[in-house]
Amino acid sequence: MKLLEERIKKDGVVKEGNVLKVDSFLNHRMDIELFNEMGKEWKRLFEGTEINKILTIEASGIGIAAVAAQYFKVPVVFAKKSKSVNLDGSMYTAKVESFTHKNVSDVIVSKKFLGPEDKVLIIDDFLANGCALEGLMKILEEAGAKLQGIGIAIEKGFQDGGRRIREKGVKLESLAIIESMDASTGEIVFR
Amino acid sequence: MKLLEERIKKDGVVKEGNVLKVDSFLNHRMDIELFNEMGKEWKRLFEGTEINKILTIEASGIGIAAVAAQYFKVPVVFAKKSKSVNLDGSMYTAKVESFTHKNVSDVIVSKKFLGPEDKVLIIDDFLANGCALEGLMKILEEAGAKLQGIGIAIEKGFQDGGRRIREKGVKLESLAIIESMDASTGEIVFR
Repeated sequence: MKLLEERIKKDGVVKEGNVLKVDSFLNHRMDIELFNEMGKEWKRLFEGTEINKILTIEASGIGIAAVAAQYFKVPVVFAKKSKSVNLDGSMYTAKVESFTHKNVSDVIVSKKFLGPEDKVLIIDDFLANGCALEGLMKILEEAGAKLQGIGIAIEKGFQDGGRRIREKGVKLESLAIIESMDASTGEIVFR
Repeated sequence: MKLLEERIKKDGVVKEGNVLKVDSFLNHRMDIELFNEMGKEWKRLFEGTEINKILTIEASGIGIAAVAAQYFKVPVVFAKKSKSVNLDGSMYTAKVESFTHKNVSDVIVSKKFLGPEDKVLIIDDFLANGCALEGLMKILEEAGAKLQGIGIAIEKGFQDGGRRIREKGVKLESLAIIESMDASTGEIVFR
């Protein structure tokens, strides 16, 4: 998606350790007009696919998913990151390792809000090693819900999450895929 | 706001300890159509007030603020809850006690995204004891930004956060104010 690529070139900052900071428009300050364009683009990319729920993960996925959901006319469920353990069996849980925060958290979704009747589009801001997505996919599996596709804002194409998930036959649409980036020059190359 | 009050009566669950669960439409599964109506209502309530930024706090505020922001045509900044300390002075921080989670977290906003030029509307899902709001207000003060008003989805009128904030002269608009609620009968009375 040209608009997003241009915005990343303009406002994204490449840091050492394969970190791309896009906090000025994506995940701290949120450009809601851009989110609307992203929502429209996912709608176009998933045209004809039956979707009755969007699943995302706190915190940075929520704003993007909420705005995008308007084009699909479906509710959004966001998975919560928590240290709380599932004592009463009322929640689906998965362990997720964070690339940014270098820690492991439990990701939970209430069983009330996901079930075999659900045809789900997952939306998130970043895809790098794919751990968060695989956690959400595990939760969908547990719930008996159908994964209809995944919409990602920015995929780090040089990490292997995207390849691994596409190999499973999942329709994964990333609006911008970064082929390479260089912290010393600030250069970003898109696929 | 009648629509929100009716939804709370229909789908809200009163639990012991003054807990109101609205996770089926507000803060776990998000009803985006309802969020749009809430956004329109805040726009009406703050008509004529100059606002160039919305500030909210992760995680449950984000979806509501992102959808509401479309009616104000402004970006949203969400404060992050973090244990990270502000070593380099690049962030505004405040300590916030959570009523739900019974813990204290640091709330942080990057200095890049708030400054004296900002006329801010704070949006959040709940107001109970007001600690989260007071944390955000402290951050605005530190930033030299102007607080133009606060939009809350559900205020627990029987806790004193709302009174304390209104006494400071802040324009605080809660779309539903709960006067009392009873866990044994499930009854909810609105102001």
